[in-house]
Amino acid sequence: MNNFTFYSPTYFAFGRNTEKEAGHYVRRFGGRKVLIHYGGGSIIRSGLLDRVKESLKQVNIEFAELGGVLPNPRDGLVYKGIELCRKEDVDFILAIGGGSVIDSAKAIAAGVLYEGDFWDFYNGKGQIEKALKVGTVVTIAAAGSEGSNSSVITKEEGMLKRGTNSELIRPIFSILNPELTQTLPPYQTACGITDIMAHVFERYFTNTKEVEITDRLSEAILLTMIKEAPRVMEDPDNYEARANIMWAGMLAHNNIVGVGRDQDWASHKIELELSGLYDVAHGAGLAVIIPAWMTYVMHHDINHFAQFAVRIWGCEMNFANPEETAREGIKRLKEFYTSIGMPINFEQLGAKEEDIPYMVETMGLGENETRGSFVPLTKKDMEAIYRLAVL
Amino acid sequence: MNNFTFYSPTYFAFGRNTEKEAGHYVRRFGGRKVLIHYGGGSIIRSGLLDRVKESLKQVNIEFAELGGVLPNPRDGLVYKGIELCRKEDVDFILAIGGGSVIDSAKAIAAGVLYEGDFWDFYNGKGQIEKALKVGTVVTIAAAGSEGSNSSVITKEEGMLKRGTNSELIRPIFSILNPELTQTLPPYQTACGITDIMAHVFERYFTNTKEVEITDRLSEAILLTMIKEAPRVMEDPDNYEARANIMWAGMLAHNNIVGVGRDQDWASHKIELELSGLYDVAHGAGLAVIIPAWMTYVMHHDINHFAQFAVRIWGCEMNFANPEETAREGIKRLKEFYTSIGMPINFEQLGAKEEDIPYMVETMGLGENETRGSFVPLTKKDMEAIYRLAVL
Repeated sequence: MNNFTFYSPTYFAFGRNTEKEAGHYVRRFGGRKVLIHYGGGSIIRSGLLDRVKESLKQVNIEFAELGGVLPNPRDGLVYKGIELCRKEDVDFILAIGGGSVIDSAKAIAAGVLYEGDFWDFYNGKGQIEKALKVGTVVTIAAAGSEGSNSSVITKEEGMLKRGTNSELIRPIFSILNPELTQTLPPYQTACGITDIMAHVFERYFTNTKEVEITDRLSEAILLTMIKEAPRVMEDPDNYEARANIMWAGMLAHNNIVGVGRDQDWASHKIELELSGLYDVAHGAGLAVIIPAWMTYVMHHDINHFAQFAVRIWGCEMNFANPEETAREGIKRLKEFYTSIGMPINFEQLGAKEEDIPYMVETMGLGENETRGSFVPLTKKDMEAIYRLAVL
Repeated sequence: MNNFTFYSPTYFAFGRNTEKEAGHYVRRFGGRKVLIHYGGGSIIRSGLLDRVKESLKQVNIEFAELGGVLPNPRDGLVYKGIELCRKEDVDFILAIGGGSVIDSAKAIAAGVLYEGDFWDFYNGKGQIEKALKVGTVVTIAAAGSEGSNSSVITKEEGMLKRGTNSELIRPIFSILNPELTQTLPPYQTACGITDIMAHVFERYFTNTKEVEITDRLSEAILLTMIKEAPRVMEDPDNYEARANIMWAGMLAHNNIVGVGRDQDWASHKIELELSGLYDVAHGAGLAVIIPAWMTYVMHHDINHFAQFAVRIWGCEMNFANPEETAREGIKRLKEFYTSIGMPINFEQLGAKEEDIPYMVETMGLGENETRGSFVPLTKKDMEAIYRLAVL
């Protein structure tokens, strides 16, 4: 096990009606003037926005608001948010939405207190040194951004998708009410499930040996997802299934299943180009890339892939030929993705083979540079993985 | 799933040599003058105390010190600690040790800022409203006190063991170096393992349905323990096994495996009388009580006990007779305890059947009062469980 630090100080309030406590928590955690940040009209139509505003009014907290966050959130709205916060003297950002809204809120929170261009944090030119506090009311179980220190923003010019990490943008509180996810369309629900599982995979396939506890915790999340996913696809109003998925989504990305081990994250890098270029859902892109990545790298540690097949999918271990077991595990994963309506190749996603060279180039990797730690991947490897994902 | 809040803001630093960063963390988290609190001479002999003192000196932090914490920590030393902290103007307690030392440190931290008798917090007469900050350097994987909001102290008069909970006594940081546990005698190591598993059991057997994620996380810890326990008993210097056990020990008690469900805690209540009266290790007492408790309550939810047998011990499910599977799971647990040198009945523990009425009385339960939520237990039930544990 590698040395590590683990710090997850976010206060989580989970369950029915918890969004009504938003104002209470803003006050408890020191907010004075809030920017409510959100996406489209669904939270207006559902009455969620009004409930949250009401809870702020009850504790006499003033607010400004900024909607319009798109999936794959754009830098344009972040600049707008920063300007608005400065003008309105905002000291607390309250995100109502999924990963896109929360990531956008984090970018604004860091940008407000920065003299330069906030994009510096995303292209590696600057480091976050202070940020406004961020609270969240989560409406989609997917990104885990409600408990993570990361944020991904898309630069409109060239649709470049880039991420940053900082303890300073980790939400101070997050409110998770599974009821709020019951109205999600099946496709978005499935994209969320895929995203959650991918956050585990990026940590599960590692070269660090003897991390049994973290392996088992990772498997706990995966087993929960494959139990609950069909139940929620069958019955979108199943509160219990929604609740298990929602809490698993947080756990998959607050790093409790990642500590003590090298993490990979090549698949996310490879996927970001897909969702950036075609503006498709991140989860859908991951369903296409993850199995291709697994197939490409599995020989590096066949036994770990066999463990995945046995412990997660209940496959029989083929002791004479573990590779067969490993392949069976990947096959079962693809079947699972298909069963919840996810694409598993370029055609189903709407991606084009001829764009592969462009995507490989825009990753910005030098000729000898690599990404990923399980198997460090060059541009050539990335290209091969895209090609595996075509069919 | 029940509504819940989850808040685990402790900063964890895990791995080799991390105790050398104690001073750094005291400073980072605002300590100015420290009380170093510890138990016996082992941390002096091993050089650990010196290493920690050195790390404080390096960042110019002054300290007082108070050793002598006994297992089942006593109120007497807490009073002494409170007095010393007031005299020396201490604002930060640094515990070096296991659960007993940490619990004693928490009691001191709350007592220093309280005008009344700190015991009020433990007998239900007062509530903790403020406390000094507590940091820990953990030397035993067991109690999970390094990541919990609880503390248990024994009143010397009558050897009454009582607990309290408060977010204010949760450690602000905890340093976990598995190397520090390598010198523990096998018996203490095994007591720690038993304690860790018991913290999971108290949460795992619940009347709350549909908490798959928390079930699976609980099982992750139990599976890790039954893999790593024999390895560490065989080779006490096995760093990796020690590391997995140590991190599992924290996770078993920071409530991540307890959220969203009713918790039981009757077994702890029943055990506290044993370790209080005979001054035996808490873990050893639990190994005697837990299987007796399981046997007494299993009919309340045979299928959940069958799940325990199948998922944890790999038993074949007897679909025609799940009770047989459930009993097999409990039998396997007892065999496991025996295999790591734990007692599984009164005689092996050194407890006496004739003391049962006294223990039942000192619990202080009224005639119609109950403890535990899985099956609420009366005094009569408690007595029956003690009697099941005799043989």
